[in-house]
Amino acid sequence: MSMTIAILAPGAMGSAVAQRLTGRGARVLTSLEGRSAATAQRAHDAGMIAADDAEIACADIILSIVPPSEAVTLAERLAAAITREQTAPVVVDCNAVSVETVGKIEEIIASSGARFVDAGIIGFPPRPVHSGPAFFVSGEHTGDVTVLRDLGLDIRIVEGPVGAASALKMSYAGINKGVTAVAAAMVLAATRAGAADALRDELARSQPQLLAKLDVALPDMVPKAYRWVAEMREIAAFLGPDHPANLVYEGFARLFDHIAADEKGARTDVAQLMAFVKGGKVGEV
Amino acid sequence: MSMTIAILAPGAMGSAVAQRLTGRGARVLTSLEGRSAATAQRAHDAGMIAADDAEIACADIILSIVPPSEAVTLAERLAAAITREQTAPVVVDCNAVSVETVGKIEEIIASSGARFVDAGIIGFPPRPVHSGPAFFVSGEHTGDVTVLRDLGLDIRIVEGPVGAASALKMSYAGINKGVTAVAAAMVLAATRAGAADALRDELARSQPQLLAKLDVALPDMVPKAYRWVAEMREIAAFLGPDHPANLVYEGFARLFDHIAADEKGARTDVAQLMAFVKGGKVGEV
Repeated sequence: MSMTIAILAPGAMGSAVAQRLTGRGARVLTSLEGRSAATAQRAHDAGMIAADDAEIACADIILSIVPPSEAVTLAERLAAAITREQTAPVVVDCNAVSVETVGKIEEIIASSGARFVDAGIIGFPPRPVHSGPAFFVSGEHTGDVTVLRDLGLDIRIVEGPVGAASALKMSYAGINKGVTAVAAAMVLAATRAGAADALRDELARSQPQLLAKLDVALPDMVPKAYRWVAEMREIAAFLGPDHPANLVYEGFARLFDHIAADEKGARTDVAQLMAFVKGGKVGEV
Repeated sequence: MSMTIAILAPGAMGSAVAQRLTGRGARVLTSLEGRSAATAQRAHDAGMIAADDAEIACADIILSIVPPSEAVTLAERLAAAITREQTAPVVVDCNAVSVETVGKIEEIIASSGARFVDAGIIGFPPRPVHSGPAFFVSGEHTGDVTVLRDLGLDIRIVEGPVGAASALKMSYAGINKGVTAVAAAMVLAATRAGAADALRDELARSQPQLLAKLDVALPDMVPKAYRWVAEMREIAAFLGPDHPANLVYEGFARLFDHIAADEKGARTDVAQLMAFVKGGKVGEV
């Protein structure tokens, strides 16, 4: 029996996951309401089928893969459709949201009678030549999504309730994107003070592996910075308002916001970051 | 002709540097005014000679190696002694201070007629079996301190005015200690959410070199966290009050302050960090 999976939305990650699933014979629905022609084309190229919310509510598994700021709104929309259609899908929140936010999403989905799985995606979108990211899942219904392994997804169970997978995603992203953020801030400050070449030389001498990581991570970050703003605020929420490092992630959110604005505007900071990386090109990864 | 070098204060770095210099035949003075018996013993073991400020003002080279919060006060004290004694030493500020602070220190020293060199120390204190840290120096008088190479110090000239060496130190420390800080914050948050083992497993899978670095850096940080508080605030000042990442370094200052208090108190967070590192011991580096 062929599975029907719905993936919202057909962004870079969502459509790449869809392509993997359709390549293994699954039917993959998505919603194209209000989306651009380019997005519709990307969804089509990935083998996705445009569907309305009633059809999406009838899928076996619904994957929510959206920017973190849209995760709650999408959950409300899905819960409403599932309630109307009286279906019983498994809804999987794959978004980079805090433990608190995913708890709220679980309540919204549970109110429709659907099963809920917490998930965190770590890694780059799947490509034909590349195995794809890990989907860490937690909660009592993880057994209902292990079937996705047969369709080519790397599903890994995290022991623990809803929230454990999101906590893993938050803490991993908090380290990985935090490293990129401190490096970006310091490269820009060193450049302004005329010390960028000396900084690069010293990193090459004493931290060659970290420098190699930054040479990949800084160009990769620039075109994604706008998306990371909300994710940094979710990590701040994950720490809690009274945690001494809460400010750190609010600061990262502002830094990524600043870089995203610079990328669309003067590109002064972007040019300095790329000069540091030397020979790197934005978004090449 | 034997050189006379003064080093203030005889802390962990200062006394290790002194030991290297005395081992190569230099006379090394220090001030023990108001210092503990343990510090006096450490200075003695390093071959340092206790001296008053008048004697220190007569040294060929004076190295200021103190916590960043004490750098300006020490500069004022040295300038007063040099003015009184009408001597002409080279004063080298080796402290982790912002470009703005080192500019202020330069003015204070210049008012006494002494020559001034900006320096930043990167690396661990020298040990008999270990070549020691790099001393990056900048400013117009760097030629007056290259003689320290003959005494076993790794002196590296950064092209640029006073401030360039400090900018290198700030940006390097901002990356290196910033990486440790984001990891500490996320390990503690993951531990609280029950996701620490999953976080470690995922880092081992996808970022093994970063994990190896953290296994060294986290235990090394704990006993030094109290010293890093003021250094993080210097880095925030280096970025400037309006920089979007300014908040990040204020947050790191609060995090290190929190960890330092925990180390002296309940040791809850310290225990969680050490459990993550597994088999690591605090301050073993």
